[in-house]
Amino acid sequence: MRFAKGHGTGNDFVILPDPDGELNVTPELVAAICDRHFGLGADGLLRVVHVAAVESAADARPAEWFMDYRNADGSTAEMCGNGVRVFVRYLIEEGLASGPDVAVVTRAGIKLVRAEADGQFTVDMGGAVVLGDGVAEAGGKKLPGLAISVGNPHVACLVDQPVADIDLSAPRVLMPDELAAGGANIEVVRIAGEREVEMRVHERGSGLTLSCGTGAVAAAVAAAVSAGEWPASECAWTVRVPGGKLAVTPSATASLLSGPAVIVARGVLAADWLARQAGAAPRLALLSTG
Amino acid sequence: MRFAKGHGTGNDFVILPDPDGELNVTPELVAAICDRHFGLGADGLLRVVHVAAVESAADARPAEWFMDYRNADGSTAEMCGNGVRVFVRYLIEEGLASGPDVAVVTRAGIKLVRAEADGQFTVDMGGAVVLGDGVAEAGGKKLPGLAISVGNPHVACLVDQPVADIDLSAPRVLMPDELAAGGANIEVVRIAGEREVEMRVHERGSGLTLSCGTGAVAAAVAAAVSAGEWPASECAWTVRVPGGKLAVTPSATASLLSGPAVIVARGVLAADWLARQAGAAPRLALLSTG
Repeated sequence: MRFAKGHGTGNDFVILPDPDGELNVTPELVAAICDRHFGLGADGLLRVVHVAAVESAADARPAEWFMDYRNADGSTAEMCGNGVRVFVRYLIEEGLASGPDVAVVTRAGIKLVRAEADGQFTVDMGGAVVLGDGVAEAGGKKLPGLAISVGNPHVACLVDQPVADIDLSAPRVLMPDELAAGGANIEVVRIAGEREVEMRVHERGSGLTLSCGTGAVAAAVAAAVSAGEWPASECAWTVRVPGGKLAVTPSATASLLSGPAVIVARGVLAADWLARQAGAAPRLALLSTG
Repeated sequence: MRFAKGHGTGNDFVILPDPDGELNVTPELVAAICDRHFGLGADGLLRVVHVAAVESAADARPAEWFMDYRNADGSTAEMCGNGVRVFVRYLIEEGLASGPDVAVVTRAGIKLVRAEADGQFTVDMGGAVVLGDGVAEAGGKKLPGLAISVGNPHVACLVDQPVADIDLSAPRVLMPDELAAGGANIEVVRIAGEREVEMRVHERGSGLTLSCGTGAVAAAVAAAVSAGEWPASECAWTVRVPGGKLAVTPSATASLLSGPAVIVARGVLAADWLARQAGAAPRLALLSTG
């Protein structure tokens, strides 16, 4: 079983080429591969499958490849703004797509990615919606902000102090009620310059991460609102995250996210290691249904 | 640049074959490779160098391979009981050593490793010395124990409760004075059955880890002392660590550590990724001398 490892601003992935969709990629196998001590280690797994091999994509589509994204725990996820850039870099490097424009089928619909001349990759993350006021609590303090949807829910809070100083280990949403109940990604955002912000994020389900694509979009939306530039003017914002730098053009119709996509290594999983994981799968599957 | 990734009871390593000692493996490159988000990710790196390529091993030695062990931060370390097993498994799988007995040159001298018929690997960790009484503090409680040297210093504390219940996030040595000043690995050890213990370890410089080879030896020494079997009788103890199971025969002359050694994957580092790390090295080296 071949693999590659890559990252986008420190959000890292194992890429598993499976053009014909023949691999039995169980949640247990994904978790074993993504385990940072007993496996290869990654935040998630990107399985590369030709759309012809995916039943639900049997109808004609203007895209050739399906990004089967899995979280490190083996669960499926709809989309990942850092992952899809790495996915497209891999397709182009492997000669599986010609670029510079590549359409990728995801569980959140078709995403358009462009390989830029400067080596960055830009993905159209879709429209963002300002839902209204929001309030988060972090380190015992109430932070006013905005509730924003980028497909998934966010509360983005503008702050005056350096974002590194804020205790984001266990924040929670206080309002709006529906996000307080269901949870949301929480961003703290500081205006750091001309159309530039620094941002840290606590991801729902993942905790503190080095980077979050939809979080970067939400941060740029909150900054644009505070600058009186929402939704009329579509300008690019620099969003500095702990894992690097992203550029975001927030938009109510087609938010653009640009950033690096790096391939670190390529290789093959050891056959005997893989056989042991496969052997363990049925037992683990049984346990996980409980 | 080729690599393999492997682990022993969850203590994981990137293996870098460099038989002729030609690679410029700077501390910065090691740190970049071992970075879990921007690189491959590991607790440490094992460079595989033929002794003929190592100046300090120019004299005739009854061992063919030097284990150049590096910590994840790029610093050198003398030895690693989990690493040397993985190292020898790699040598044998690659046809670089024939086994079952393989002698490895380390910075702590020549270590003898045996590939057992049952797939486990056994390494002679050398003699252990009971230095005297020791006391550690963990979770606000004083834990009496023994100060033990296994080449490096340990305070191993026998406890009655499950070791998982003890707060080992920030323990410290209270005595003996020299270990309180210089620091030591701290183990909590519970007798769990007939010549069987469970153990957790806080490693000096690394914090809580899934496994520690010298820590397992220290735990077995403490258990043998409490059983009145030290140093006369040399019996095998099962040492359960968070990352799996080890077998230790503690001894004042030649402590034996047996456990698994797993190769997860093999591959090649991406040339452009590597070039970027190399380019960054001089600047980083300059910084790290400060």
